[in-house]
Parts: sequence; structure tokens; C-alpha cells
Amino acid sequence: MNNSRQDLTLYNAHFIDGLVKAGVESAVISPGSRSTPMALLLTEHPDIKEYIQIDERSAAFFALGLAKVSGKPTALLCTSGTAAANYLPAITEANNARIPLIVLTSDRPHELREVGAPQTIDQNRLYGTHVKWFAEMALPDAEESILRYVRTTAAKAVYTAKQSPAGPVHLNFPFREPLLPEYDGLFERLETDRFPAIHLNEGMRVLPQCEIEELAALLQGKEKGLIVCGEQQSEGFEEVVVELAEKLGYPILADPLSGLRSGAVYSDLIIDSYDAFLRNDRVKQEAVFDVVLRFGAMPVSKALTQFLCRHAGKVHCVVDGGGGWRDPIGVATHMLAADESAFCRLLTSCLKEREDTSLWMRNWIRINQGAKAKMESIGEDQELDEGTLFYEILQRLPDPSALFVGNSMPIRDLDSFFFANHRRVRLLANRGANGIDGLVSSALGAAAVTSPLYLIIGDLSFFHDLNGLLAAKLNGIKMTVIVINNNGGGIFSYLPQAAEPKHFERLFGTPADLDFSYAAQLYGAGYEKVSDLSSLDTAMAKAERADGLFIIEAVTDRVKNVIAHRELWEKVSQEMNKLTAGDDFWK
Amino acid sequence: MNNSRQDLTLYNAHFIDGLVKAGVESAVISPGSRSTPMALLLTEHPDIKEYIQIDERSAAFFALGLAKVSGKPTALLCTSGTAAANYLPAITEANNARIPLIVLTSDRPHELREVGAPQTIDQNRLYGTHVKWFAEMALPDAEESILRYVRTTAAKAVYTAKQSPAGPVHLNFPFREPLLPEYDGLFERLETDRFPAIHLNEGMRVLPQCEIEELAALLQGKEKGLIVCGEQQSEGFEEVVVELAEKLGYPILADPLSGLRSGAVYSDLIIDSYDAFLRNDRVKQEAVFDVVLRFGAMPVSKALTQFLCRHAGKVHCVVDGGGGWRDPIGVATHMLAADESAFCRLLTSCLKEREDTSLWMRNWIRINQGAKAKMESIGEDQELDEGTLFYEILQRLPDPSALFVGNSMPIRDLDSFFFANHRRVRLLANRGANGIDGLVSSALGAAAVTSPLYLIIGDLSFFHDLNGLLAAKLNGIKMTVIVINNNGGGIFSYLPQAAEPKHFERLFGTPADLDFSYAAQLYGAGYEKVSDLSSLDTAMAKAERADGLFIIEAVTDRVKNVIAHRELWEKVSQEMNKLTAGDDFWK
Repeated sequence: MNNSRQDLTLYNAHFIDGLVKAGVESAVISPGSRSTPMALLLTEHPDIKEYIQIDERSAAFFALGLAKVSGKPTALLCTSGTAAANYLPAITEANNARIPLIVLTSDRPHELREVGAPQTIDQNRLYGTHVKWFAEMALPDAEESILRYVRTTAAKAVYTAKQSPAGPVHLNFPFREPLLPEYDGLFERLETDRFPAIHLNEGMRVLPQCEIEELAALLQGKEKGLIVCGEQQSEGFEEVVVELAEKLGYPILADPLSGLRSGAVYSDLIIDSYDAFLRNDRVKQEAVFDVVLRFGAMPVSKALTQFLCRHAGKVHCVVDGGGGWRDPIGVATHMLAADESAFCRLLTSCLKEREDTSLWMRNWIRINQGAKAKMESIGEDQELDEGTLFYEILQRLPDPSALFVGNSMPIRDLDSFFFANHRRVRLLANRGANGIDGLVSSALGAAAVTSPLYLIIGDLSFFHDLNGLLAAKLNGIKMTVIVINNNGGGIFSYLPQAAEPKHFERLFGTPADLDFSYAAQLYGAGYEKVSDLSSLDTAMAKAERADGLFIIEAVTDRVKNVIAHRELWEKVSQEMNKLTAGDDFWK
Repeated sequence: MNNSRQDLTLYNAHFIDGLVKAGVESAVISPGSRSTPMALLLTEHPDIKEYIQIDERSAAFFALGLAKVSGKPTALLCTSGTAAANYLPAITEANNARIPLIVLTSDRPHELREVGAPQTIDQNRLYGTHVKWFAEMALPDAEESILRYVRTTAAKAVYTAKQSPAGPVHLNFPFREPLLPEYDGLFERLETDRFPAIHLNEGMRVLPQCEIEELAALLQGKEKGLIVCGEQQSEGFEEVVVELAEKLGYPILADPLSGLRSGAVYSDLIIDSYDAFLRNDRVKQEAVFDVVLRFGAMPVSKALTQFLCRHAGKVHCVVDGGGGWRDPIGVATHMLAADESAFCRLLTSCLKEREDTSLWMRNWIRINQGAKAKMESIGEDQELDEGTLFYEILQRLPDPSALFVGNSMPIRDLDSFFFANHRRVRLLANRGANGIDGLVSSALGAAAVTSPLYLIIGDLSFFHDLNGLLAAKLNGIKMTVIVINNNGGGIFSYLPQAAEPKHFERLFGTPADLDFSYAAQLYGAGYEKVSDLSSLDTAMAKAERADGLFIIEAVTDRVKNVIAHRELWEKVSQEMNKLTAGDDFWK
């Protein structure tokens, strides 16, 4: 009944070589026994870079961060049992955020399932609807037809994971003992010539020319339009959407994850302070648009969402190359499944050149600049509340660099304080399911393929994935973590329950009283605590020189922070009232 | 469309009161927004003790440990999205280990699902085949019929979770904003009189009398029988199985989790060194039995499993009150779905009294005592290898106390070195899926309801659930953790790959180089490092006096440890050869 060592070896080697031929370059491996053949052969393959993380939950988020930045499917490998269950949080995020992952779980063979054998759970469709494809693999065998099958399956897994919308796929491998393959120098000897690699092209969705022309005619008649851009993955999108905006005379409301707030595309039609000025009632009410063209995921800003909702009934086109239904507010009038860049290019080519800048466009630029000027006044503060801190850190990011931000407050502060600029700062976050989990690991996975990388994260979220830090040491990765430690869940202070003190701190504030200098020592990271701008400068300089992990801890106050944010929004709002006073501002 | 505050309040309050009336006493809550109504009302209910843990993965294992020791279903509550996904590892363990959990996830309402809304994943049947029951709940409503429905559903959830085999159930609650219920003093005002509590009795499986009598006749004719006991949950089992063994004249091979190795049932027919002496070829071959009566889960010992396999074809009865198919080695001849205690009582009453102790029984006692004497000689060692350390710690456990052990090596060392005794030491482990994850939290959940509690755990496993430590501080729980730090995965040194150094340390040894004194400081725990018996004494005494968490770190060596274990087994094997020499030992 046992498979021979040759069956085990060739089956796994050809599968892994199939992954490589289909474009997989990295694998994140967690230690285990059942996964032995795959782990040894992934490590042995000259074209796979392997990363190790002991905690499978962190390993999966690491793979997600790596795939997010590289754009290439990353393989994940673990042993049987709860190990595989630990992948679920990252898999749900990958599925929602459209990140290609190749999840490989090893399993007991069929005769040891559901009979009380150790370390055995039902791994069949373990991730339910949260993967794009599941396959239960055949037992190891070195027959020609089986080797062809594993190579084909590897290619199909990559092809499926990459097709828009990209996402995770799951293959479950039953392995019998003995589990030790031949591996030393195996890939030099492996005969792969008789298996030609399969050329893969995932294609893209486009609209027929007539539909584009109709849309062009519709838009050309509408002066008051908005382009809204959320996180998207279409190549070259930033340039072509700016070109489209110029031709239409529409401002672009650009989410921080849209790729439009930094880099070569910098233009004043990129509106970056809308989250502040759309809190003003007059602007919300009077800036009435006729049409919205929306690309990518729904932006982070709640003020923007509420503004779009308020004027429901206008033409609202949702363009998504992944064909998803991205309309949580139920305002879409057009659902267009089309690659975002291709769509912009085609539409632009159907539009007439504009002679001048419209009043509409000039007004959006004016209120944006007015709001931004007030927001930037935060830089004059001496005390480091979270807003000031965020603003100051963003000023100090090197060019080029990457910034990963946590969910809950950091992504919202990024939205408020990262103003459009020429610098090449790549902004990253986990906005598929917006969890506070797995962020250290996601950032480290990203840092494995882009450097320098900074992570700004709250204390609860940092705590949630402290284990993730181990990957820096085990794989020699450099990263700077800036922990904004307000000792608890800052976002709850903005919710209605904050007004009622009973149970608030126990259930929502949840102060953990953690001194992260000990976490730094545990994981061999550099560490600085900052309390003012000069210590921030020193810490950022030290972090830049550090070889590996560096942790900067900034202690802030949840209550003061809410007050400071509200004061700032109030200042912006007053400025908006001044700027848009009179009846003819929007006329 | 929004539900009124009254709908939200009454719906949740009656559900929670329904849980309490059905026997739920504890809830483990992780902070979140969508779960606000349930969190506030669980905390407010006077008969629910709530525990807080920020990391949902740890929270779920905490609930599992608590339910394991209390025997009562524990509620678990989290917000929407990846938070809920983090429960999966503990849920798979609970499902395999038969632990009743009431998993409550909060969710976006239907109109916000699969339309790109934030923090939203498909939570419908999120845990797949790993829960006993899933229900998507109705929206909050205060109609009489709906209040009756939520109370009934609460009772049904508890009833289902507790029915043998016990396990987790999952209820998913869609909540619309606003999420803040009335709660202050609510349960004093809540009118529950018109909803009488439902009396629940989960019943038990029993065999018809004729089947018991046939079995009694079969067994009475067979002198050479064995009783094998693994982990089981049938009340009062320990006493009745010893009585049965005495009447049959069969030795009991008792797994450490069977409940038979300590306490009032102590008897020399409880065989506790079989993992050592069944490695001896002569014993394995010559101790031929005619019949096996097996209760509970498959024991930990691989030597025992192989011995049972070797003599496949003999009468082998698997008795399981949960009706599971617990036979990973495929040797069962009788599958009997019957409550273990009831089965023993009925069978005993059908058997005749024995006059004397048979040679068969005397032989098992002789070899057990011979092996044990050799095993105990480990206590004479000066150096603390893992075996010695384990043996010495076990000698020092207070009476009464509870001991939770980690998977991989600790459970195997417990099997080797915890000899049957009179002390009341409750032995606990997570042997459903045997993961190395979630053990700190499982032990802390157990420590919340039984004290003093000790956890012995390896360094990789301790690392995996470091976050679990936070619950000690947040909930004021006392526990002593003894970390056996051999800097990596000790169990891999016993596997074939240990013979091949290439990739071994990177993929399997995985040294993390963690100094856990920093983890102790991070979580405000007491800490001692031990290197010999006298420092172990000091550390154990300090731990006993400590108020909260105390961590004892013992640094050992993976390579030396394998050698020491093999030497010890060799010593036992030689002793067995001597003891059983000649042809007439078993005759």
C-alpha cells in the first residue's frame, strides 16, 4: 500500500516544477511532519525562494503581503490538522482583496480520515467559499499520466489564482508514510523535457466599442462629473485615469490606496482632502454632481460614502475588471465589467479635447486646497497627538519607499494626512476584509520584496500579530514598525457607546498595558520610544540605518486624540463655510 | 429599515437569557463594533461570567479549555470578518475533542453582503463540517414569536452542543446600525415569565441487555484480555472500569488522559509503563491477547498502537458513547455505541466473581513494575534532560492540582513519566487534532475554573500562542507555565529526516532563539529560569506563591534529549529481556 520513495519524489518534484514554470517564485513554509516531501523539494528547487514562519496564521498573511507587492502567486505549505485551519483569516482577506495564493495543505491518506487518527481534521473544502478553487489531489505516483496531471494541476492553480478577480486556491495532498523524498540535487536530474510548459494568459474583460461610444456621448453632455478611485490592481491605471479626467474635466477623488496620491501622476485635479471637507454640510449638500465614474474598491472615507449616498439617483458607473459587484451603498446605475486601464484608454479616445477648465473643476480644486491648508496646520502643533504624528511621519518617508498601514484608525489617518505628492511612496493596506489581524506579517511579506518598508499600526493590531515579527529574524528581512500605542481600541471612542462609561473600557477600550520594548527584545529588534518631533527624527534615522527589524513606539491618548481630530474637522468645516459662502459658488 | 433600539435590546436579551436558562455560565468576548449589542448584554447578565481576550484565535482556545474542565458549553463572541475566521483552529479542535462551544458571530445584515462593504466576509457555514450545527439568525425583532424563537434557538444550541459526541455549534447574527442596546439593569426588568425554560436532557446511548449478555459470555471464556482506556468524558468511568477489570482479570492499559493514572481508583492492575516496555520485541511478540476492550480515544502511545496492530484479528471491541468510529488502525471487530460507564456497569453485573489473579494479569503487573523501576531511575540523574525534568516536575505537583500538557513531545513525556498514583492530579491536553497551537489559551481557560493549574509546553508551541498570555492579565487568572525550551521542534529529531542534515534545521528544527524572560515582562508574569533540581524547587515554590501568571523556563538540548530517551528505552528493553527470559513466562 505504501508509495515508494520514487513515487513520492517524482510526484512532488514535478508538481513544484510545474508551479515554477507557471510563475511561482516564492513559498512560505511552516514546519511539520506530513508536509515533509513538499517542504524539502520546495526548498531544494533553485527557482523558489522559501520563507519560514512557525505560526501558520502569520505565515499565510506573510504570503499575502508578498503576493500583494510582487503581483505573483505565492505558495503556502503546512502540515495537517489545525495548522491548516490557521490559514483561514489570511485566506478570507486574500479572497476579498484579490490576492493570488496557492495554498498547499498536506493531509493523512484516505484510510486514516475520520477514524480517530491523530492530527487529522476534515480538510476537504476546509476554506469553503473563501477560495476560488479546491482540489483533493491524487496519491503520489510516478506514472507518466500522473506526473502530467500534477504539472497540469500546478499550472491550472496558478492560472485560476491569477485570473481577475485574483484570489486563493487550495490543493490538499494525501501523503502516506514514509515521507522522506530524495532531494539532494534532484532538480538537476529531473527529466522535464517531455512536459512542455503551458503558456498561460489570463486575459482581461473589455466592453464592446458601441458601449464605450454611448458612454462617451453620455458623459460629454455632463459638466458636473466626479471620478472616484479606490484600491485597484490594473496596470498603468494611474496615468490613463488622469488623462481621462483631464479630457472630461472631472476631479479625481483618490483614495490613499488608489495609487494616485503619490508618484509621477501628481496633478491638482487629484482631490485628497475630501474626507475632511465632505464632513461640511454645505459642501455635502451643494456640490451636486450629475455623474460618477467609480474605479476599484469602495474608498475608506465614510464622509465620501455618505456624500455619494445622499445624491443617489445620479448616473453612477462602477467599473471593475474583476466583474465584482462593488456597491455597498446601492447607488450604481451602470455595472461595467472591464479592465480599468483598458476602459480609460478606450473612453478617452472617444472624447473631444477640452478648451478650458470648468468652474466645477476649479471649485473642487479650491475647496480641496482650502481644506488641505487647514489640515496641514496640524504640523505646527508641538504635542504629538495621532494626527500630528501621522502627518509628521508621512513627511519623513524616504523616496522611494513603501508604507503599510493598519486598519481601524491608521488607514483613516492615512486618508486624512497623506496629501498627493511627487514622491514615490507605495501605500499598502489589507482592505479586503479590513481585519486588525495579520498586519505585521502582511507588511513583512511585502518588505521581503520591496525596501525600505514602514508599517504604521495601532497597539491592538500590533499585539494581534506579534508572532509575525519572528519572520524578520528567520528570513533576514528589514522593516520599520511604528506602533501608535493609545493602549486600546481607538476607533471605539468615535462610536456611540463611548458616551456610556459602564463596560466601555472592559469591552471596547480594552487597555492591554503592553510595553512593546519587551516585544522588541524578544524578537531581537531595534527599539525607540518617541514623545516629540526631535525624538521621532532620531528614531527614524536609527531605523533607516538598522539591518533588520526596528520598532518605534509612540504613546498617545485615546481621549485627547478624538478631541484633536474633531477640532481639526471643525476648523476645516469653518473654512469651507467661508470659502463657499454666498449662493453662486457652485453656479 | 433600521431596527429599533427596543428590537435590538429584547432580541439579544432574550437570546442570552435563553442561553443562561439552558446552562451557559461563561462567555469569552473579543472587542468589536458589530458585536456591540451582544457583548454589552452578555456582560450585563448577572449569571454570565465574561472573559475578555483581544486575539480571537486565543479567545476560542480559552473557551475550549474552560468548557473542557467545566463540562459546560461556553459562549464565544466576536465581530464580523476575519475575526470570525480566527476561531477555526479552536473549532476544529473542539469538534474532534468533543468540547461544547456556542460560537456567536455578528455579521452585516443581508443588504451589505457581497457588495464590497467593509469588514464583511461570507460567514454562512464559515466553519463547514467542523461544527455540529449552523444557523443564520433572523434580524432583531421584538415580536413575541421572534422572542420565543431566539429563546428556543438558544436552548437548541446548548442541547445540540452537549449531545454526545459534544461539539461546537455556530449561530450567525445579522445586526443593522444603530448597534447600541439598552442594557443598564435590563435583566432585572426583563419579562421572562411567559417563556418557561425548556428542560433539556441529552440522554445517552446504551446497548440492549441481550447484547451485553452475549458479550459477557464471550469474555468470560477468554483469560487473556486487555482493557485499553484513552481520553473519555463519561462520568464515573474510572471506578466502574476498574471494577470490570477486576472481575474479568484483565489489566488496564491507561493513557494519561484516561483519568485512571491518578486519584482514588489507584490499583496495580492499572498499567502505566506500556509505552516503554511495548518497545521490546519479545514482549510485543509474546504478550498475545485474545480480546481487547477499548474505551475512549486512541491512546497517545505509538508502541501500544503498533502492538495492537501486530495482533490484529483478535476480538477488539471499541466502546464509544459518542458513537464515533475510533479505529485508525482498522482492527475493530465490534463497534459498540454505548456510554462507557453504563456499559461497564451492565457488563460487570453479568460477570461471575473471580477467585484468584491469573498468571496473565500477574505477568502484566510484573513487567509494568519492572519497566517502571527502570524508568524511575531517571530521577537519579543530575543533569536536567527533558525526561528527568518531566519526571521531577510531576513529583512536585501539588495535590490536588491540574496539569495541562502541550502536544508533540510533552504529551509523550507525560505518557512515559506520569506513573499511576493516589494524588488528585487532573491531566489535560488538546488531543482532538493534536495541534501545537492554542495551548496557552486552552490552559488559561481551564485555569479560570480549576486551580492550581500547571502547563508544560515546548518552546515552539509556547511561541505559537504567546498572545494567549494576555488573558491572564485581562481576567485575573493564576497559572504556572513550564516552558521546555530546546530551541525548536524536538519531535523532528525522532523522524527519518533527522539523519540528513541538509535543510534540517531550517525546515524542521526551526530554532527561534527566543528568550522568554522578555515575554514574561511583556505580559507582567513572574519568571524563573531553571537549570537543576534545586532551582526547579525554588521556581515551583515561587510560582505557587505568585498571584497571577508565572513562567518557568527550562533550557534543554534536542540532540542530547533524543539520546537520553533512547538510552532509557534500551535500559527498559534489556530489563524486559531478563524478566521474560525462558519459554514459560507467558504460558
